[in-house]
Amino acid sequence: MRRSDRQITDNEAIDIINNGEYGILSLVASDNNGYGIPLSYAFSNNTLYFHCAGEGSKLDYIRRNNKVSFCVVGKTEVLPAKFSTKYESAIITGLAIEIQGEEKREALTLLIKKYSPDFMNEGIEYINRAFDKTTVVKIIPESITGKARR
Amino acid sequence: MRRSDRQITDNEAIDIINNGEYGILSLVASDNNGYGIPLSYAFSNNTLYFHCAGEGSKLDYIRRNNKVSFCVVGKTEVLPAKFSTKYESAIITGLAIEIQGEEKREALTLLIKKYSPDFMNEGIEYINRAFDKTTVVKIIPESITGKARR
Repeated sequence: MRRSDRQITDNEAIDIINNGEYGILSLVASDNNGYGIPLSYAFSNNTLYFHCAGEGSKLDYIRRNNKVSFCVVGKTEVLPAKFSTKYESAIITGLAIEIQGEEKREALTLLIKKYSPDFMNEGIEYINRAFDKTTVVKIIPESITGKARR
Repeated sequence: MRRSDRQITDNEAIDIINNGEYGILSLVASDNNGYGIPLSYAFSNNTLYFHCAGEGSKLDYIRRNNKVSFCVVGKTEVLPAKFSTKYESAIITGLAIEIQGEEKREALTLLIKKYSPDFMNEGIEYINRAFDKTTVVKIIPESITGKARR
């Protein structure tokens, strides 16, 4: 990181990830270009989980090259008079790995807990219905870095 | 795009970009991993502009591989009972190219107009002071795609 004065602690970065509603998954697309897409996610036990359909370009790219990053942006506020912006962000880099079986079921349950905590029973039913046609991917962080201007 | 029912028109995608406060630049980092960072930007005449310091890993990556994408997320709203999220997003893919001289000055002026419209005079002075140590990059879109669930 060039601006070390903007670096925040690991715990602060994890707070941003825990509180984020969505993040951007950045990966290398098939013609070797950078490619980023917004995704819902859950983060637990130092692992990030997201789900996607059983097929699609995102999965194709990950299967070719699973070195990805995931960026979550927290609060931002433009500071017009300072020609700057208050912000806080966290970036995970790591390997994206498809998961199966019980690990996959637990990850989907984490997503229900995060986004639909008042609908756990319906969520479990939804997981059962959609389980086979849903792919779940985990990212085990090699690094988590946070930046902020506050 | 797998879910064609989620595709929105080019004009809607451009609206999301014009109204966005920041976007995520996704590029290929030096060890061939996907890497994404949040950035302020301006969009004008079908060209996206952002600025950065005269040196740093972002620029190093772009100089090695300038095939990038830029993702802007608009309004989002979690729909807990539907196990889904309302969202709108736009993704530009294209080549990142450093710009110089008058084109660079105009791009920095666009950034001031977007983020600090009430401080144009001070902004022009700021551009003059920081001009030489600031790098400005444009992305000329090869594609702009938008997605939404509303």
